[in-house]
Amino acid sequence: MYFKSTFFEDYTLGDKRVTLGRTLTETDFVVHAGHTGDFFPHHLDAEWCKTQPFGQRIAHGTMVFSIGIGLTASEINPEAFSKGYDRLRFIKPVFIGNTIRSEVTISEKTEGKKPGYGQVTEHVEIFNEHGEVVLACDHLLVVKLRPQHA
Amino acid sequence: MYFKSTFFEDYTLGDKRVTLGRTLTETDFVVHAGHTGDFFPHHLDAEWCKTQPFGQRIAHGTMVFSIGIGLTASEINPEAFSKGYDRLRFIKPVFIGNTIRSEVTISEKTEGKKPGYGQVTEHVEIFNEHGEVVLACDHLLVVKLRPQHA
Amino acid sequence: MYFKSTFFEDYTLGDKRVTLGRTLTETDFVVHAGHTGDFFPHHLDAEWCKTQPFGQRIAHGTMVFSIGIGLTASEINPEAFSKGYDRLRFIKPVFIGNTIRSEVTISEKTEGKKPGYGQVTEHVEIFNEHGEVVLACDHLLVVKLRPQHA
Amino acid sequence: MYFKSTFFEDYTLGDKRVTLGRTLTETDFVVHAGHTGDFFPHHLDAEWCKTQPFGQRIAHGTMVFSIGIGLTASEINPEAFSKGYDRLRFIKPVFIGNTIRSEVTISEKTEGKKPGYGQVTEHVEIFNEHGEVVLACDHLLVVKLRPQHA
Amino acid sequence: MYFKSTFFEDYTLGDKRVTLGRTLTETDFVVHAGHTGDFFPHHLDAEWCKTQPFGQRIAHGTMVFSIGIGLTASEINPEAFSKGYDRLRFIKPVFIGNTIRSEVTISEKTEGKKPGYGQVTEHVEIFNEHGEVVLACDHLLVVKLRPQHA
Amino acid sequence: MYFKSTFFEDYTLGDKRVTLGRTLTETDFVVHAGHTGDFFPHHLDAEWCKTQPFGQRIAHGTMVFSIGIGLTASEINPEAFSKGYDRLRFIKPVFIGNTIRSEVTISEKTEGKKPGYGQVTEHVEIFNEHGEVVLACDHLLVVKLRPQHA
Repeated sequence: MYFKSTFFEDYTLGDKRVTLGRTLTETDFVVHAGHTGDFFPHHLDAEWCKTQPFGQRIAHGTMVFSIGIGLTASEINPEAFSKGYDRLRFIKPVFIGNTIRSEVTISEKTEGKKPGYGQVTEHVEIFNEHGEVVLACDHLLVVKLRPQHA
Repeated sequence: MYFKSTFFEDYTLGDKRVTLGRTLTETDFVVHAGHTGDFFPHHLDAEWCKTQPFGQRIAHGTMVFSIGIGLTASEINPEAFSKGYDRLRFIKPVFIGNTIRSEVTISEKTEGKKPGYGQVTEHVEIFNEHGEVVLACDHLLVVKLRPQHA
Repeated sequence: MYFKSTFFEDYTLGDKRVTLGRTLTETDFVVHAGHTGDFFPHHLDAEWCKTQPFGQRIAHGTMVFSIGIGLTASEINPEAFSKGYDRLRFIKPVFIGNTIRSEVTISEKTEGKKPGYGQVTEHVEIFNEHGEVVLACDHLLVVKLRPQHA
Repeated sequence: MYFKSTFFEDYTLGDKRVTLGRTLTETDFVVHAGHTGDFFPHHLDAEWCKTQPFGQRIAHGTMVFSIGIGLTASEINPEAFSKGYDRLRFIKPVFIGNTIRSEVTISEKTEGKKPGYGQVTEHVEIFNEHGEVVLACDHLLVVKLRPQHA
Repeated sequence: MYFKSTFFEDYTLGDKRVTLGRTLTETDFVVHAGHTGDFFPHHLDAEWCKTQPFGQRIAHGTMVFSIGIGLTASEINPEAFSKGYDRLRFIKPVFIGNTIRSEVTISEKTEGKKPGYGQVTEHVEIFNEHGEVVLACDHLLVVKLRPQHA
Repeated sequence: MYFKSTFFEDYTLGDKRVTLGRTLTETDFVVHAGHTGDFFPHHLDAEWCKTQPFGQRIAHGTMVFSIGIGLTASEINPEAFSKGYDRLRFIKPVFIGNTIRSEVTISEKTEGKKPGYGQVTEHVEIFNEHGEVVLACDHLLVVKLRPQHA
């Protein structure tokens, strides 16, 4: 975790970075329920889950999203702030014991309406250990233009 | 927390439900950092935050989202599943001690491409105790059509 | 979780409500030890437990009670407050992986000594996934009488 | 934490032990909510609590009980097991920042119906830092009689 | 947990105390990562660990140390304070499911430079359930000399 | 968090790296107690602490050590493993609200007894927000020599 200034002009379309992996454990399921207050049986009742199509407890979508994004939190860009996310999709269920990692690709750059700033889109894909995408989303960053010197 | 079947036809545009409130504490900040691995100083370094425009620690966007959505987790609809979220926006910073509640409005209904299912959009707004929207997003539900009897 | 006024007169003897289930995990055992400071080997030392009659770690009684009661926390009655519990009994051991649910029955109503209030007893039974009662207790509620209109 | 055999005959009516203290923090409130799933506003919504008679968040009864009992978990008596609790009463509200300690008094001894065992009652009182009892209960222990040698 | 005054003169070389055991669970691994911010794959990525010599996740050294020392926290000596540790060594890896206990031996006594105080060294060994030492260290205590009466 | 091979020859005496800061909160105190089982009143009883010289709760030494070391966990060197720590000293008390950061200096290099490996000592100092060292220690790394090509 460190600071590194990256301006709008420094982002290159197609650039990609990949995180290390993290195994999602039963502990994470229980912690996420307790953290958010969502105790739905899909996530916490192993007996009920046995009667369902997926056959076992599945991760909260908000957990896969939060931990998958957390994995990307290494370099702090003081020239950027997060505006939000578009097209967040839950693509495959995540089970206890799956190991996820995230891949971030610079997918779009537009000079924003806000003077002095541009918008950079990071396409984020979260993979399980089988190489399947389990969640995808577009992270919208508002980034300063490089200061001009007269 | 209970099961209640609600079919596509049962959702009414403009219907609204409001949750109770929950105060976001320093504990939640620390738990979210530990849960996601995001220890950025914006959330955890009170000294550094004093030197920044907001002057104090701000909540992780993924935490406001996860807890705000968690607040809505009361009625389980076995006829629906979550496809994802659109237009997730971080509108105002959330500080230690703010109390949030969520408001869910049925904002769109479209007969989906998947036969037997429609898509229902829940517009979610998360408010602080001053009545300001701090986060908004559109939750996309895929919902079964009501079974037809010949 | 929502508010609903229920007065003393509204409680009906024999009325019953049942909660959804929750699987008690190793995580819950560890969290409860850390939360309460009770690190007795019965709950946390798998090796020692192998030498004991039950053969494996057993849940803290206070945890089965706290989570079993927590499962019933859905409807908030602003006309009632909790006075305490009688006849709390640990009936069967609970092991890692057991799934519990709670059943609440209105078992007694007495006009209390406190003017304007009555006492309602909720008999609570906590079941495991085999349908066995693992814990039982009587929850004592002090409830307002319905306001009289002249 | 250590083992020490104490038989039914070894318990003396009126014997008393007192624990050290522990300050109940906002963290404990949040952890207990997440552990049990009870997110009632009485415990977690500081804004709503301001509108109530007590004016601030109050501890879950199950938490004061669990932590107060946890404080007594030091000596393990392999000759005894816990049968349950009687007359558990919530006497005063406990607020964030209160410091509790527990006092255990041997209050009753009866030769049980189970041959070779007696029942010992420990009267437990949990105090705040003002010396007020906030919770009281009777802990029921089933204890082996001292083995007889011919 | 209780207070007991022990002066420098009261410590006897070779005296030994042994703690009860505690099983280190996957939960402890996840909690320690979240508590310290160390999410190295050695501790949290089960898939990557399969490709490594040890074949599975290994405990953080700081966790084995912290929990092993925590196991010894029973008697509080108001006449002593902890100066630090020497020769802390990670001797064997600790895996999920290992049960540890600690053994503390008074290994050295020196009259310190600080008048009225001596230094006592506690040699701490942490064992797994196979009787193997997994971590060793020397705890340095600064202890008051017994007050002299004229 | 990323892998980067650094061999014994690549370490330069006097090289220094500094981490970002983290505020130690009441939450961290409570979590550490629950994680390690050390509930000594020095860390958890605010009332008792008022009667002591330091006047308030102080952090567990094992917590300052574990979190301070955790702050340094960014670059993973697959050519090194941790042997342990020497001269770990608790220099100043850490209170709730202090913000710590760590500074790591390469302080010693010795060709080890183990063929193909050397020993590198990282001197670690943990500072509070006043620039005072609160804890210091020497981290001992065993590091591969750079492979020789014929």
